[in-house]
Amino acid sequence: MAKGASLSGFPEWLPEERVVEQQAIDTLRRIFELNGFLGIETRAVEQGSSLLKKGETSKEIYLLSRLQEVGQEHDTPVEDRLGLHFDLTVPLSRYVVENAGALTFPFKRWQIQKVWRGERPQEGRFREFVQADIDVVGNAELPEHYEVELPLVMVNAMESLRAFGLPKATVHANNRKLSEGFYRGIGLTDIEGVLREIDKLDKIGADEVTKLLVETCGATAKQAEACLRLAELSASTGAELESRFNALSKQCGIDKTSEAFALAQQGLSTLAMIVDESAKIRPGSVIADLKIARGLDYYTGSVYETFLDGAASLGSICSGGRYDNLASQGNRKYPGVGLSIGLSRLVSYMLHGAHAQASRISPASVLVAVWNEESRGESNRIARELRSRGISTDVAPKAAKLGKQIRYADHLGIPYVWFPASDDAEESVKNIVTGEQLAAQAVSWTPDSVYAQQTVRVDSDKR
Amino acid sequence: MAKGASLSGFPEWLPEERVVEQQAIDTLRRIFELNGFLGIETRAVEQGSSLLKKGETSKEIYLLSRLQEVGQEHDTPVEDRLGLHFDLTVPLSRYVVENAGALTFPFKRWQIQKVWRGERPQEGRFREFVQADIDVVGNAELPEHYEVELPLVMVNAMESLRAFGLPKATVHANNRKLSEGFYRGIGLTDIEGVLREIDKLDKIGADEVTKLLVETCGATAKQAEACLRLAELSASTGAELESRFNALSKQCGIDKTSEAFALAQQGLSTLAMIVDESAKIRPGSVIADLKIARGLDYYTGSVYETFLDGAASLGSICSGGRYDNLASQGNRKYPGVGLSIGLSRLVSYMLHGAHAQASRISPASVLVAVWNEESRGESNRIARELRSRGISTDVAPKAAKLGKQIRYADHLGIPYVWFPASDDAEESVKNIVTGEQLAAQAVSWTPDSVYAQQTVRVDSDKR
Repeated sequence: MAKGASLSGFPEWLPEERVVEQQAIDTLRRIFELNGFLGIETRAVEQGSSLLKKGETSKEIYLLSRLQEVGQEHDTPVEDRLGLHFDLTVPLSRYVVENAGALTFPFKRWQIQKVWRGERPQEGRFREFVQADIDVVGNAELPEHYEVELPLVMVNAMESLRAFGLPKATVHANNRKLSEGFYRGIGLTDIEGVLREIDKLDKIGADEVTKLLVETCGATAKQAEACLRLAELSASTGAELESRFNALSKQCGIDKTSEAFALAQQGLSTLAMIVDESAKIRPGSVIADLKIARGLDYYTGSVYETFLDGAASLGSICSGGRYDNLASQGNRKYPGVGLSIGLSRLVSYMLHGAHAQASRISPASVLVAVWNEESRGESNRIARELRSRGISTDVAPKAAKLGKQIRYADHLGIPYVWFPASDDAEESVKNIVTGEQLAAQAVSWTPDSVYAQQTVRVDSDKR
Repeated sequence: MAKGASLSGFPEWLPEERVVEQQAIDTLRRIFELNGFLGIETRAVEQGSSLLKKGETSKEIYLLSRLQEVGQEHDTPVEDRLGLHFDLTVPLSRYVVENAGALTFPFKRWQIQKVWRGERPQEGRFREFVQADIDVVGNAELPEHYEVELPLVMVNAMESLRAFGLPKATVHANNRKLSEGFYRGIGLTDIEGVLREIDKLDKIGADEVTKLLVETCGATAKQAEACLRLAELSASTGAELESRFNALSKQCGIDKTSEAFALAQQGLSTLAMIVDESAKIRPGSVIADLKIARGLDYYTGSVYETFLDGAASLGSICSGGRYDNLASQGNRKYPGVGLSIGLSRLVSYMLHGAHAQASRISPASVLVAVWNEESRGESNRIARELRSRGISTDVAPKAAKLGKQIRYADHLGIPYVWFPASDDAEESVKNIVTGEQLAAQAVSWTPDSVYAQQTVRVDSDKR
């Protein structure tokens, strides 16, 4: 992060760090578009009433007021004020409802934008950060196969970010129907409450969660134990998942003819499909992990969290799920499924955990030297010629001593310095990394391919 | 603009419109990087004290408050609150000061980001919009040649946007030193006041401006007339500019040995250089136009505005200038020169004035049909094969009747529908635009080049 960054929670990158973020964004966009997702951008602001709809995050909203209104903000109820969006799902829901007539459904969209949360900044938690989302939203209905395909697009995306130093990512999937069916099957009714407490498992441990289940969700000690045993269940094949779940259901005395059991089986079959289909393409990329609960209460089917090998402290770096009731207009519902990458946190890890680096600070391959200010026009002409051929080129800021001009190139990592013809010498170009100097003409010269583009590399010496 | 857009002044584009904006952004970025500018992104928020420093726009700031603070906003003075940036120049100044030790000067940066202004929305005026900026900032000093080169980079950028339907752009340049020298030379002292009134010429006309100069700037009728005659002066060569300006100075009785005249000559020579150098590269791309004043008072040298042929109602679409005193720390100054494109307004023009259109709504070249849900895996396998070869591919949402699957492709503008092998037929691909259908294999097939990429075209029939 830029050292001088003066506002906690609002990360800013130095130019060479921004190259890493920008190229990570370019990479994600390429993968999303390769998979046929349409890019959109929504406004940064939403009505307070939209922002307040969603549970947990509602306390973290930034509200806006115009400078002229200072002192009168109170005259307007929060619901009618504008606030900055805290995710890209709430704006998507609104966008889909507003533009339903102009969209083709199922609507597959990618969106990479900043979001804002007014929470207390802590390590790796930002108040302003970039999210990279994909969602598919249906009109009235949405086939289940998207619950299988979307996490796989994200597996693909995170695989492509390994070039930036990201470790292997594993998606942990669960299904709300499975959980709800199980909880109801053992006689619990406060499903949201149970999910909320189970979501705390990693943070506060099994003993505390048991206590909370009993105290706040009306569970008996035995019911609480069953919930914890369900949360311990994981599997990397559909068959394994089914046999373990069915064994546990039997042990807990769930009636196989009950509605609850049928609901659980519905979730189970989707989850088994996700694990098996993903294993065909990339074994181990998606596992069933029945402790994944997701705090937000709008998920209705599959839920996903994603963890990086050896970087568990980052928490889930890509989360989401299926939501059937987030967007609706009148009786018309727009069910969706989507995942969101917390990109700023990943970029922070790439830069400081994996030491990803831009190959150079400047996009320029070439710095054209300037012999004297009178001949700057000639240096500019050479630069224009190179640029017209797609070669990014800068021109020395001042006709200073040659050593100083070369140092400017060196500071910016520009690999080539171009010397216009002079009384003493013909036109030439020098690679200041290798020291090689050759006669060259702007109309035909091309840089060595390793020096042609600004790239990102992971400096393994520093790891 | 998306028809349902529910908040006035906050434009949102439909997916096919967003393609135009996204590709315009990509084009600008490419030009900026080709010219050796470094990309940065700054946080969306600044301290109130930074935002309030700058004159004119200070009434248009959006301030933030956290939801928990509602009702207590007042306890914090506006200077200590956070607000959304209203341009990218104020954030750049702060960024440069904060990171001066880590940057190489002169610091050439591009930045394309949203900005927010709480003003009353009106035609073509947005409360949230995208700006595309380039600036060069020096440490203590900044060579004048950047005042020539930066408008030319923007000429180049706007030239490249003509593919999106933009008419020819002309940069109108002036120089504050020239204006100030002239005004002082004829005996005026309230230079900022005169610039402010002259800036209104196009809006309120010569008579009103004359009145204001007399009433608010202490000008005599004769001085006001001289100001207006200066504002009428324009030229497309340096020699023309010099002879006209010097003739006018003489008529107005300006003393050639005065400090004021020397200051004017300094501005004159820079402006002449801008016009002559740009004429060498692109005749007519930059003209001297002495009525350009720019309302904001931080400019100290060259000032620029840019107008589109036949679209004067858009106002200036690319403006800026040289500022010597915007960024400083202690005695250290960071003089800069930069220009800013108001991109959202241009995109609005491209879409609705020039009828620029995405060649298709979806980035996908191919839709793979699905014969039945059991064989979806085979369709997915074909899609993965095509994607691995860089061909953007979607898969039919449902194993519906073939006509319905083709209609889905047609709605999204996807040119090819791929048919996996079936009992009846071998694997083939159909171009649904031309009707041509050929046997094909995913490992080797490539789309015709005209259908390979999503592009933007200008539909001249609709103009």
